[in-house]
Amino acid sequence: MSTQPTLPLASRTADLVGSVIDSSTSLLASQTHDIVRFAMGSPAPEAIPTEALAEVGRQALGVGASDAYDYAATEGDPPLREALLETLEGTSDATTPERLTITAGGMQGLDLGFKLFVDPGDLVAVESPTYTNGSATALSYQAQLLEVPVDHEGMVVEHLREEAARTGRRPKVIYTIPTFQNPSGATMSLARRRELLELAQEWGSMVIDDDPYGMLRFAGEELPTLHELAAGSPLVFSVRTFSKIIAPGLRVGWVDADPGLGQLLINAKQAMDTCTNLPMQRLVAGFLRGGYLQEHLATQRVQYRKRKEAMQEALTEHFGDIARWTDPEGGFFLWVTFEPAIDTEALFKIALAEGVAYIPGNAFSAEGRFPDALRLCFASTPPDRIREGVRRLRAAVDRQRAEG
Amino acid sequence: MSTQPTLPLASRTADLVGSVIDSSTSLLASQTHDIVRFAMGSPAPEAIPTEALAEVGRQALGVGASDAYDYAATEGDPPLREALLETLEGTSDATTPERLTITAGGMQGLDLGFKLFVDPGDLVAVESPTYTNGSATALSYQAQLLEVPVDHEGMVVEHLREEAARTGRRPKVIYTIPTFQNPSGATMSLARRRELLELAQEWGSMVIDDDPYGMLRFAGEELPTLHELAAGSPLVFSVRTFSKIIAPGLRVGWVDADPGLGQLLINAKQAMDTCTNLPMQRLVAGFLRGGYLQEHLATQRVQYRKRKEAMQEALTEHFGDIARWTDPEGGFFLWVTFEPAIDTEALFKIALAEGVAYIPGNAFSAEGRFPDALRLCFASTPPDRIREGVRRLRAAVDRQRAEG
Repeated sequence: MSTQPTLPLASRTADLVGSVIDSSTSLLASQTHDIVRFAMGSPAPEAIPTEALAEVGRQALGVGASDAYDYAATEGDPPLREALLETLEGTSDATTPERLTITAGGMQGLDLGFKLFVDPGDLVAVESPTYTNGSATALSYQAQLLEVPVDHEGMVVEHLREEAARTGRRPKVIYTIPTFQNPSGATMSLARRRELLELAQEWGSMVIDDDPYGMLRFAGEELPTLHELAAGSPLVFSVRTFSKIIAPGLRVGWVDADPGLGQLLINAKQAMDTCTNLPMQRLVAGFLRGGYLQEHLATQRVQYRKRKEAMQEALTEHFGDIARWTDPEGGFFLWVTFEPAIDTEALFKIALAEGVAYIPGNAFSAEGRFPDALRLCFASTPPDRIREGVRRLRAAVDRQRAEG
Repeated sequence: MSTQPTLPLASRTADLVGSVIDSSTSLLASQTHDIVRFAMGSPAPEAIPTEALAEVGRQALGVGASDAYDYAATEGDPPLREALLETLEGTSDATTPERLTITAGGMQGLDLGFKLFVDPGDLVAVESPTYTNGSATALSYQAQLLEVPVDHEGMVVEHLREEAARTGRRPKVIYTIPTFQNPSGATMSLARRRELLELAQEWGSMVIDDDPYGMLRFAGEELPTLHELAAGSPLVFSVRTFSKIIAPGLRVGWVDADPGLGQLLINAKQAMDTCTNLPMQRLVAGFLRGGYLQEHLATQRVQYRKRKEAMQEALTEHFGDIARWTDPEGGFFLWVTFEPAIDTEALFKIALAEGVAYIPGNAFSAEGRFPDALRLCFASTPPDRIREGVRRLRAAVDRQRAEG
């Protein structure tokens, strides 16, 4: 580009960060040898209900079904909206038509939330560690991030209050993954949930409640969602997705938000992609109406519990002396912290060579915290392979120590 | 919301405008009587290749095809990227892997372009009339719009130069639909295309080249695209889509842009929706590889020419005394201007009652210009129904005059 005109980039492009998640998964994608993959947050291939989806597809997307390929209403296709409202009835995510917008997966829900609420320079509180592809969306609107620690009860809400007292700045938006958090696996306790909502109410801050894993609880007691606890407060913007409970490639999710947003939300989505792809909306609608979801979730929960237990047993066997890890009650992820500290980004290439992949801890903090931690996805690997993968991970650590 | 906290909206929400296109189509959607629909820019139901799509779907999305439901690479699924590169080879849109990003339809291409290049307050030149759902995306990043007239040779580029001389302000971005423009049907002449690119080069302005209809030429000579004429200049950002040539519901399109954008473009898309839905990418890849596109386009071009001619004949019969209209060489739309002026927004409800729908002219200008014009889509209605629709439109005009 040296002899050519400079691109007249917008100033926000300076904040359009990539993530270590992406660079790790790109590196992983180029490998051809046998690798146990604890890196991606995808359901296992055998957990994708292709039989049910193919069956629904034959009915909904067959010869002559031209209406399934037209533009959809921006707020979502009526059959999916109806099936979803019915599916959510009686759950902690129960909602009403005025609050519901179908989105292109959870990420578009986050894009909508941050676009609607973040001005350049606004303070956005995020969990630390957090899902950095989510916080990257806040950065793309030039947010300033405030990293709030996470413990076994989720986001340390008290820290938020202390920081505000110390700096005199309150966050405009608080971004949280309250249930089976990505990457820590922690679940925000009921007391913390209430504390967070009180703080949001006191400050007039928006809570972006990103809960992709909530339906995948395999242990412990169900907790009310932030959506339910907020009881209609306009300050909770809830982002949900079918990515983890049916399949990520569908790119179908939903947002549950204050009806006062009304046309603003529609206009914002219209300017992003006109509408969510209609064939996949019809597919999900048929999947829900066909009663496949509950059975599918029941099966997955059993599998995921077994896999988490297999991973914890293997970790105890191979890492009992040098690491500690979290004990999630659902979702996809375990978070491992090494003591004494190990550089998990440097370890990554050795681990790949040993045949195991994960995401380094610093991928989950815009400030690069957690260099001595890593995220393991237990959900997409069968127990035997999990045991083999953890064994390989220990071999990588030993090799790094021997070489270091 | 009166007793509840106020939503802490971002300032850009003041610019998140809806469009008369949306309100017109919403009103249309609620009608149950027989209506000839010239409003929407969708292909006709019979123009959706459901047989080929179902056939490809059986192969690509069947039982066991779990990989088709996973996350896709953000830049697009390799099979689609390869099939598309091959399809475009030898055409005016021929491109290379480094320039290509798969998007969620053309609208996401526009969202990417405006997000990457527009800072609040930046001047964005748009055609007048233009596709306001596109310019709304520029507004969502707080652009200031400059409306540039369109004549039978497309955007009047000279006007751009004059305005810049008059105001001392050059547009940062120039948004154009050069071929079979929406809504006017006009095609930018070769001289104008060259003039526009020279101006962009002189000013260092980005050209967002939105060309959804280019493959649907049914008369006249093919012209090189702005992409081809730019010959690798980084200042042309080309947005393309399968919406009009296969089906809009797929939400699959592509962007052809300077490789210097590189990771920025990937990061921007990642923050919007992670990736484009994978099953529909596989479907389009199979459609292209199966050789269905060329035959499909050939059939559609013949149909669209017949429909355009039927509409022009009917207009001559019913409106020869009071209107003039454009003569598009491809695409979907005719633009009708009434003389003496008729208020086409007021006419809309009467027309609905008479059983015909269109989009009022003021929908295509953020400033509400063209109150005496309207857009007719000829592409989605068979000739006999077109004749009936135009007859009903004249009946509506006569009724409005009698009542007025």
